[in-house]
Amino acid sequence: MTILYGMADSGNCYKPRLLMAKLGIPFRNIEVSSHSGDTRKADYLAKNPNAMVPLLELDDGRRLAESNAILLYLAEGTRYLPQDRFERALCHQWLFFEQYSHEPYVAVRRALLTFPERAADATPERLASTLERGNKALGVMNRRLAETPFFAGSAYSVADIALYAYTHTAEEGGFQIDAYPAVADWLKRVEADPGHVPMDWLPN
Amino acid sequence: MTILYGMADSGNCYKPRLLMAKLGIPFRNIEVSSHSGDTRKADYLAKNPNAMVPLLELDDGRRLAESNAILLYLAEGTRYLPQDRFERALCHQWLFFEQYSHEPYVAVRRALLTFPERAADATPERLASTLERGNKALGVMNRRLAETPFFAGSAYSVADIALYAYTHTAEEGGFQIDAYPAVADWLKRVEADPGHVPMDWLPN
Repeated sequence: MTILYGMADSGNCYKPRLLMAKLGIPFRNIEVSSHSGDTRKADYLAKNPNAMVPLLELDDGRRLAESNAILLYLAEGTRYLPQDRFERALCHQWLFFEQYSHEPYVAVRRALLTFPERAADATPERLASTLERGNKALGVMNRRLAETPFFAGSAYSVADIALYAYTHTAEEGGFQIDAYPAVADWLKRVEADPGHVPMDWLPN
Repeated sequence: MTILYGMADSGNCYKPRLLMAKLGIPFRNIEVSSHSGDTRKADYLAKNPNAMVPLLELDDGRRLAESNAILLYLAEGTRYLPQDRFERALCHQWLFFEQYSHEPYVAVRRALLTFPERAADATPERLASTLERGNKALGVMNRRLAETPFFAGSAYSVADIALYAYTHTAEEGGFQIDAYPAVADWLKRVEADPGHVPMDWLPN
């Protein structure tokens, strides 16, 4: 059976859980937490030398890291990856935007404010810079979502899963989603897509 | 004709230049530099609200941002994107690794040390943290390249283009490539791949 090594309160790990729930792919979830240092222990580093979760392990033992690469792998041939070449390119564009311009601010500020082991890093300078750059990312998203209902265009795709993962917890990081009305409306559209499960969902 | 908005000394902009040179795709290069603030001017923000280069503009005016999304778009159906589903997933994995775990340290430390407008950001703490995390990324790369000649497996792909872009300038950021012998050998393999052009190459 497919195994997902992941962390319950990580948006990056929620991404493949949400997609596998929607696709009906059975998997075993193994909790590996950076809170307790599990991701930096030798047995995990042998699986992922980059010391991060999530990590997908296939039936045959092959492993794939990087949440958005896992999404693209699982989505291939399904309605979650656009068939049109340019829409698929836009889906990729927003996946890279998420990892470079969104997660390091929107997700990291939530971690700084809510994960006890990150409290020492939560300096005033760090909180100010993550607030500024996180708001910039939310502004770019709001502008896109004023034009199209979903990030790749007219249809829900893995780009929406990736950006939903930490946008729906942005208020825990001190961001005001009400200031981005197109984002607020999109969060509801994502939650209304068939088969949606919340972040704390786990397989039986 | 295809247009690439980009910056001469940016590794992210070198990525599509290198791939289009290899593929023989004619394009017009328009210099848009963050050094002079060009990326933050209204006419450019109308093209890319995220205020970054590179940006690809197709014949019909449609635009695509994010260097690695541009690589995937251009590589589709060519030898630069693996045909095998799992090798393609590994190619994606390393593209996301590059943007999340490599570029923010290996590229940013070079910018801090060599771009005059970034000098004020080059605090001892920032230089120490980018050195530590950049070396971690180079170590992860070295481990992979001790197993396979290229990142996705046996063949050169856009993952190699993406990681080459800033690894080949890592010494300008104060990194010692000699400490990573598998990386040093791989840099030579990338340069030996047919049609390679240097970072300062531009179309006629």
